[in-house]
Amino acid sequence: MNYKIGVISGDGIGPEIVREARKVLDAVCKKYEHEFTYTDLLLGGASIDVHGVPLTDETIENAKKCDAVLMGSIGGDAKTSPWYKLEPSKRPEAGLLGIRKALNLFANLRPAYLYDELRAACPLRDDISAEGFDMLIMRELTGGLYFGARKTEEIDGVRTATDTLSYNENEIRRIAKRAFDIAMKRRKKVCSVDKANVLDSSRLWRQVVEEVAKDYPEVTLSHMYVDNCAMQLVMNPAQFDVILTENMFGDILSDEASMVTGSIGMLSSASLNETKFGLYEPSHGSAPDIAGQDKANPIATILSAAMMLRYSLDLDKEADAVEAAVRQVLKDGYRTGDIMSDGCTKVGTKEMGTLIAERL
Amino acid sequence: MNYKIGVISGDGIGPEIVREARKVLDAVCKKYEHEFTYTDLLLGGASIDVHGVPLTDETIENAKKCDAVLMGSIGGDAKTSPWYKLEPSKRPEAGLLGIRKALNLFANLRPAYLYDELRAACPLRDDISAEGFDMLIMRELTGGLYFGARKTEEIDGVRTATDTLSYNENEIRRIAKRAFDIAMKRRKKVCSVDKANVLDSSRLWRQVVEEVAKDYPEVTLSHMYVDNCAMQLVMNPAQFDVILTENMFGDILSDEASMVTGSIGMLSSASLNETKFGLYEPSHGSAPDIAGQDKANPIATILSAAMMLRYSLDLDKEADAVEAAVRQVLKDGYRTGDIMSDGCTKVGTKEMGTLIAERL
Ligand SMILES: CC(C)[C@H](C(=O)O)[C@@H](O)C(=O)O
Ligand SMILES: CC(C)[C@H](C(=O)O)[C@@H](O)C(=O)O
Repeated sequence: MNYKIGVISGDGIGPEIVREARKVLDAVCKKYEHEFTYTDLLLGGASIDVHGVPLTDETIENAKKCDAVLMGSIGGDAKTSPWYKLEPSKRPEAGLLGIRKALNLFANLRPAYLYDELRAACPLRDDISAEGFDMLIMRELTGGLYFGARKTEEIDGVRTATDTLSYNENEIRRIAKRAFDIAMKRRKKVCSVDKANVLDSSRLWRQVVEEVAKDYPEVTLSHMYVDNCAMQLVMNPAQFDVILTENMFGDILSDEASMVTGSIGMLSSASLNETKFGLYEPSHGSAPDIAGQDKANPIATILSAAMMLRYSLDLDKEADAVEAAVRQVLKDGYRTGDIMSDGCTKVGTKEMGTLIAERL
Repeated sequence: MNYKIGVISGDGIGPEIVREARKVLDAVCKKYEHEFTYTDLLLGGASIDVHGVPLTDETIENAKKCDAVLMGSIGGDAKTSPWYKLEPSKRPEAGLLGIRKALNLFANLRPAYLYDELRAACPLRDDISAEGFDMLIMRELTGGLYFGARKTEEIDGVRTATDTLSYNENEIRRIAKRAFDIAMKRRKKVCSVDKANVLDSSRLWRQVVEEVAKDYPEVTLSHMYVDNCAMQLVMNPAQFDVILTENMFGDILSDEASMVTGSIGMLSSASLNETKFGLYEPSHGSAPDIAGQDKANPIATILSAAMMLRYSLDLDKEADAVEAAVRQVLKDGYRTGDIMSDGCTKVGTKEMGTLIAERL
């Protein structure tokens, strides 16, 4: 089959990790006789360099013509990156938020699990990580505080800034359904995280999640306050299967969860809309400090490509094959610097991509 | 000297841990020849039982007549607790938020540190905790999302709920000053946590914090995004001295930080206003599952009483003595169940209080 894939190389290590993911996708094409047509799309720093803004209508229109978009990492850290040509409120974070909204990517899936082969990197004590853990955070991605009305104004000469957190029942229902659907294919547990002891938006969240749960009698639903969840992720991550939460809580908790695995260089993510379309990117950032040095771990991006095969292109067998190749390369003892440990063979970004492609 | 202390026993284990803190305060009075007059104040479940609401004007007025208030823990977990007589939006969380607002307790200080004696309980790998860590989270407590306007309404038949996050420069300035003042007495580092890449309130936060920093040239200021901070607390807690942040981020991060120490039963907190007045309570919750069983660890409450001696009553020597007594009891090998480890002597709530009082 022929598929159209948009490619956002992004900032920092973005281009080099996306290159390796494409190497693996090329191997998939060869083995399974597919054809992927790639369209380069500009976002973040690369778009600022060319257009002076982080996101253009052209990028959005071209993305819409694709079956899926594969993305490296967006973000600038050094004062020298193109981001800093713009004032804060116009920076590419806006590009990221803008493309999510424009493509209606409301469902952000972030798996966080402990790799047996990488246990040494887990920051938790052995007895806590003993059971292993495997959770999926379902973060609402186009609503809440990050998309609410905001303003900065002077009230009687006093600078005042306001952001708004708003959700309606339809926004909550569609993300809750996604969480329950995915739970049905996993261990059938959903933990919905909110601050319903304080916030109106959280109380509505809880109500609607309860309503949706009625259609999934096999799934066990629990509720947890966000402050408690931030503690539980450290003390007992094994308790979680699917964590369902709103945008900002999901931002904080998914980063915490991915760090708790110790393998943030390994963790993929998918941002989906109501159709098959999705945007796939690693969970980690753009790491400008190691950009262009062949040091970055491309596995998170390669596993994001596997999610793309599965969720947007319905190529389950091919996705399984990529995931198996990643596991095999770990078993064979190859590691990039971020996950290196005694007795393993240290390889660079390119070699890691090649080794995985070879194992398909 | 004679001091007036308000006492909110609270819910769950609240009454029994407050009793032990009073035992220690009585020993302080005896040794240092002070007189403390205690006034019982109702909040949370105890107030619902008597008045049907979690907080009354009477409690607020009586609290205002005191030099400081010592509190157990507020909160109900079991469906049987008095909390559940009220519908969610009227529950005692409102009591807690209400008393903070009424007494203008805008500065919430939550120390989080790794006790040498309790390292075995730290959930982090040995090499991460090797350096030890000792941070203080300064959480803004009377502004932001938890106190903004909120409403739930039907818009074209669709239920919609909205909360508002608002800060003005004065609210930010006063908490920032507190953070810098405290940093001057510590390791002279402030890390201000926000989401300035997205939120207007965070951009103003960052601006005002930068302005305040100019008056403290000796203090090193850094900024960190909240999602990154949730990761750093797990990977490298030793980097932090004072963390300064707004209400909701502080709620999440301070709970995460206290869990990372592994000693949440040991961690105190203070909530202060512009005067010397403050409300002092343990960082942990009301643990209804072990209430009334002489199992709870009273140390967090005893250390909160020490903070009260220091911040509200200016009794530094006495505060030092209480803290030293707590350290001594740990060195002598006494532990409540939550911090028990091999070779130590397990004691109950009351015995722990007595042992500390004896060591004054
Ligand atoms: C860059 C930022 C706007 C973004 C977010 O918070 O959504 C990032 O942290 C993420 O999680 O993808
Ligand atoms: C009970 C709740 C309203 C409260 C808060 O979030 O402020 C609690 O979690 C705390 O941190 O003191």
